[in-house]
Amino acid sequence: MKAVVKTEEAFGAELLDVDIPVIGPRDVLVKVKAAAICGSDIYIYNWTPYAHGRIKPPLIFGHEMSGEVIETGEHVTSIKKGDIVAVETHISCGSCHQCQTGARHLCRNVAIFGVDTDGAFAEYARVPEVCCWKLSKGTSYDLGAILEPLGVAVHGIMADDVNGKSVAVFGCGPIGLFAIGAAAAFGAAKTFALEVVPERLAMARQLAPDAILINPKEQDPLTTIMEATDGLGVNVAIELSGNVEAAGQALKVLGHSGRVSLVGVPTGPIELNAYKDIIRKEAKILGVWGRLMWQTWWQVQNLLSMGKFDPLSVVTHRFPLADYAQAIELATKHEAGKILLYP
Amino acid sequence: MKAVVKTEEAFGAELLDVDIPVIGPRDVLVKVKAAAICGSDIYIYNWTPYAHGRIKPPLIFGHEMSGEVIETGEHVTSIKKGDIVAVETHISCGSCHQCQTGARHLCRNVAIFGVDTDGAFAEYARVPEVCCWKLSKGTSYDLGAILEPLGVAVHGIMADDVNGKSVAVFGCGPIGLFAIGAAAAFGAAKTFALEVVPERLAMARQLAPDAILINPKEQDPLTTIMEATDGLGVNVAIELSGNVEAAGQALKVLGHSGRVSLVGVPTGPIELNAYKDIIRKEAKILGVWGRLMWQTWWQVQNLLSMGKFDPLSVVTHRFPLADYAQAIELATKHEAGKILLYP
Amino acid sequence: MKAVVKTEEAFGAELLDVDIPVIGPRDVLVKVKAAAICGSDIYIYNWTPYAHGRIKPPLIFGHEMSGEVIETGEHVTSIKKGDIVAVETHISCGSCHQCQTGARHLCRNVAIFGVDTDGAFAEYARVPEVCCWKLSKGTSYDLGAILEPLGVAVHGIMADDVNGKSVAVFGCGPIGLFAIGAAAAFGAAKTFALEVVPERLAMARQLAPDAILINPKEQDPLTTIMEATDGLGVNVAIELSGNVEAAGQALKVLGHSGRVSLVGVPTGPIELNAYKDIIRKEAKILGVWGRLMWQTWWQVQNLLSMGKFDPLSVVTHRFPLADYAQAIELATKHEAGKILLYP
Amino acid sequence: MKAVVKTEEAFGAELLDVDIPVIGPRDVLVKVKAAAICGSDIYIYNWTPYAHGRIKPPLIFGHEMSGEVIETGEHVTSIKKGDIVAVETHISCGSCHQCQTGARHLCRNVAIFGVDTDGAFAEYARVPEVCCWKLSKGTSYDLGAILEPLGVAVHGIMADDVNGKSVAVFGCGPIGLFAIGAAAAFGAAKTFALEVVPERLAMARQLAPDAILINPKEQDPLTTIMEATDGLGVNVAIELSGNVEAAGQALKVLGHSGRVSLVGVPTGPIELNAYKDIIRKEAKILGVWGRLMWQTWWQVQNLLSMGKFDPLSVVTHRFPLADYAQAIELATKHEAGKILLYP
Repeated sequence: MKAVVKTEEAFGAELLDVDIPVIGPRDVLVKVKAAAICGSDIYIYNWTPYAHGRIKPPLIFGHEMSGEVIETGEHVTSIKKGDIVAVETHISCGSCHQCQTGARHLCRNVAIFGVDTDGAFAEYARVPEVCCWKLSKGTSYDLGAILEPLGVAVHGIMADDVNGKSVAVFGCGPIGLFAIGAAAAFGAAKTFALEVVPERLAMARQLAPDAILINPKEQDPLTTIMEATDGLGVNVAIELSGNVEAAGQALKVLGHSGRVSLVGVPTGPIELNAYKDIIRKEAKILGVWGRLMWQTWWQVQNLLSMGKFDPLSVVTHRFPLADYAQAIELATKHEAGKILLYP
Repeated sequence: MKAVVKTEEAFGAELLDVDIPVIGPRDVLVKVKAAAICGSDIYIYNWTPYAHGRIKPPLIFGHEMSGEVIETGEHVTSIKKGDIVAVETHISCGSCHQCQTGARHLCRNVAIFGVDTDGAFAEYARVPEVCCWKLSKGTSYDLGAILEPLGVAVHGIMADDVNGKSVAVFGCGPIGLFAIGAAAAFGAAKTFALEVVPERLAMARQLAPDAILINPKEQDPLTTIMEATDGLGVNVAIELSGNVEAAGQALKVLGHSGRVSLVGVPTGPIELNAYKDIIRKEAKILGVWGRLMWQTWWQVQNLLSMGKFDPLSVVTHRFPLADYAQAIELATKHEAGKILLYP
Repeated sequence: MKAVVKTEEAFGAELLDVDIPVIGPRDVLVKVKAAAICGSDIYIYNWTPYAHGRIKPPLIFGHEMSGEVIETGEHVTSIKKGDIVAVETHISCGSCHQCQTGARHLCRNVAIFGVDTDGAFAEYARVPEVCCWKLSKGTSYDLGAILEPLGVAVHGIMADDVNGKSVAVFGCGPIGLFAIGAAAAFGAAKTFALEVVPERLAMARQLAPDAILINPKEQDPLTTIMEATDGLGVNVAIELSGNVEAAGQALKVLGHSGRVSLVGVPTGPIELNAYKDIIRKEAKILGVWGRLMWQTWWQVQNLLSMGKFDPLSVVTHRFPLADYAQAIELATKHEAGKILLYP
Repeated sequence: MKAVVKTEEAFGAELLDVDIPVIGPRDVLVKVKAAAICGSDIYIYNWTPYAHGRIKPPLIFGHEMSGEVIETGEHVTSIKKGDIVAVETHISCGSCHQCQTGARHLCRNVAIFGVDTDGAFAEYARVPEVCCWKLSKGTSYDLGAILEPLGVAVHGIMADDVNGKSVAVFGCGPIGLFAIGAAAAFGAAKTFALEVVPERLAMARQLAPDAILINPKEQDPLTTIMEATDGLGVNVAIELSGNVEAAGQALKVLGHSGRVSLVGVPTGPIELNAYKDIIRKEAKILGVWGRLMWQTWWQVQNLLSMGKFDPLSVVTHRFPLADYAQAIELATKHEAGKILLYP
């Protein structure tokens, strides 16, 4: 089959002919119908520090995907041939403390599909049964391929409730855009969208005509948000940019008793002015990782059923798998929305 | 001044000329601009069992109101002449365990404005400073007069979160209609509205075109709701009818780990099939009373700021105060929406 | 092997020679080392209404047990020969909404070990892998056999927090005694123990010298508890007796914003005075079933590690399996503590 | 009267004869019976950066105190002459968003007793009615004087539940010692106490024989805690030292889904490795300030009623007020426990 393979510890990747994966007794073989490019795929391709040490070539990367099950391992019970599935990327052991106490996504023995194992940028993928989410009838493959990052946004937003609250979303990349849509649908009272790239700010405007947009390069977030909230600050902030300064700002714009969900992986250490920004106003910082298995997926399904926003509107480009290099280079510029690949 | 006075322990009330109230050092005098009729006003007027023992004539009843402050007691610090206020009906002591631990609406020494003290169906009312909610600029007196019952709905809905959840509202009187609007605005995924009076069901249809309407006289709520939720049942039910059977149904339609807010005062004891309807599915029953002081009022303000539903659309009739008898008799029929009186 | 078999839809059971169970690919075979008698075993033996329809003879009943794994099915990965295990009785499917959202004990397709399948009152038992809880080193078989009912008490107590709160435990059978010990260890400030059987009240006294004991036949619980709490009532009640009146009392003794965990399966419908006992004081009723899988088991392990109370002190009698009839008849009298059987 | 007065923007303070305070209509005059030295008193005396700008001499400082009410303002209703009171230091306005939503201790218009107003290191003190906590009968003045810092510890510990959880307390000054005692009483399963001053570590040993003590200068906290928790880390950490490194360690020793209460005011910015220490394990950071008014005071009262630890054991020194300089200099060395002053 054709597959995009990271062959060396260096920039780039190659489209190669490789063997179709052999599945184990608890795996299924999925014919990949659509895959999406995630930030970590960009890191792997560009061989950024994140990739060093973590990635062991050769590797078929890519982990956001949907497809059709064409074969099942002999111990598989919950999935059958012909099922249409999306993939949860956390391959959890099921037996550790985390797995036994509602935190399978934090499994002590976790492997990440498409990072620690061969993944989605290929014609076929081996997917462990425990990572399969069956798509409800009528879900398109495109939608299936973006449920995983949509889940990140939903988990970040719903790490605590948002109904009737003001919400500031830091970073309007694909997950930020999902977060803006999810916050509004889930009943947030007022939404602020912060982003330095004008193209992405324009996408936020499209998606959420009522949101207050802020370009921190042009406008001081603190001043704008305090004015718009009668000096109270927001109830909720969600940090998706991975920018160290943004994380600091997210705390500053937070009102008393507010919470920030830290989702974006920061590029370096965050400096906290703990007295003023956390202690004195009793702010809460919630670390958010991946998706709850499977509460978040059910929340995503509920969100979709509400019909209040269309996550596919965040998809701006579609490429055949063979054009992976062009697609990833476009993604690297941080101006596009979500980009899909089709094997 | 003119005032509607319950003069005897019997059906009815009289419009009398009485003295303008004398205020104490921690009270304000409010010129009543609009008042609304509540279920308990109906009970007081009709002298139902609820009123026996509780109500001590002579009493000016009515407690849902807005108006302008025209005089302030000498110890009053937070309210001044000219302020436009709505009235919270719980006159709390501020010193008991409840008042000190976030439950002032459950104050051990509480008195209810318009029930235990003279109230709103008059040209002027004495209002304790602790019961004043200043209206933000531009709020109409009509809207001010219905914030208190709107708060009941909001407190019931928000006794736990609703974002992304399915919600069944039992009873589509004014508070039920408010609850339907609030649930949708606060991000509920799917709403069911249950009511036996066709006129009120029609109002629910108007307010919430997407809601699934159920007339329990014509349709089995359990069957309808289970079919519409893939057999899971709803996440949230809110009981506003005070009907004993409805309370039982609210539990039956609840899915595993669901919660019901009991708000409507039942006409008699509720019979619980605890094993099947509570224990076996780990349901939660939350008693809900009045409004949190003042979290609920702030939530109401946030709700209004969202502009997703107009609570004034629930007002169906307006009368001069002198027509109180006609107004209350209309309210007694349970076919109207909210009814306002103007002194 | 020897096994206690319910052979007919009638009173009693027989000790028979039967085949050692054949295990499936996801089961293990356990040599039973200790088993405990639960209330439902009493119902099955005595053929009470609970058993009718539910139990399909022939059935080896009994479900509270510990033992040694002597064989594992071919797909079993987390358990190996020689492991010492206790048994969680809920055989959950792993795929339904409940299983996917943190409520495996409420699984839609659940079967109960020893009720819907052959169980523990035998020399060997077939146990699904998903029901095995590995015992930490040094745990005795006796302790292992009572972890399941201890978990019921812990789940009931910890359905919400108890630290620094007053707690009333209704019913001092084995689970009630466990609850008294767990509440104290987990930091409850004051404990009330209610029970009508003097022998069990004496056991509560032994276990918790500081607890306030109440025999509702001799003393009015409401009066006693209100006096001991300055008229506030308790923060937490836990209903374990299954007595309909006790459930009503549990709500009456509850203070404002308090919660009751309903655990005991009531013998009939509970009559709620919802206005006074739930709504007006904003009480919460939490249905509690079984144990969270596996949060409760971890909490049990933490509880044991604290060394503040010894659950084995609740065991009052031990019999060889062959004396099952004598043991169950003793248990039926409701005067003993926990009773163990040894195959 | 005699009073310790900060007369200049410089090191030190003077014992002066000053006028007895004149009280306003909502104040009471309290004869100070016992006062305790807080960390901020040390800062004020030593004129550290914290004091610059914040403190406006002349000021009678000190804020932890108990005493007898000897006069009440004319509008005071809840306190009367002869009442024995402790003082909550947050003088809240009662009308802002914070005060109206359960966060009076975060009042937007707050003044701090003994920091922004004259305080406790004097024979008499003017105390606003809203800051009075009536002591229950039999409470000693010494105990009354330390309820405020005890409340800080309780609020930090109880910012979320601790029952059955492992808890690491960073810093064994007086509040740290209180936290160790409170955590154990409220049902923590395992306690770690971290402190670099051997004298204070010895006090922790005295107070909590079961706690695991760690001197970070001699032992790596991470290694020790991970070994003692089977590699899971603790569920709860509470940072009371104000040491920047300790705050970082508190996050490192936290297990998945754990929470840290930040209470101690850090001496500088905290550097967060957000990916590893917060996001990847979904840790929670809770800012904690002062005490909830009045939930925390009630929790303190419950804690005292349990009799599981004696907060007075943390008091190591007692001085007449005239020896304030000696007392504060002793406190500055950070080797003593709590120090009391008697006017």
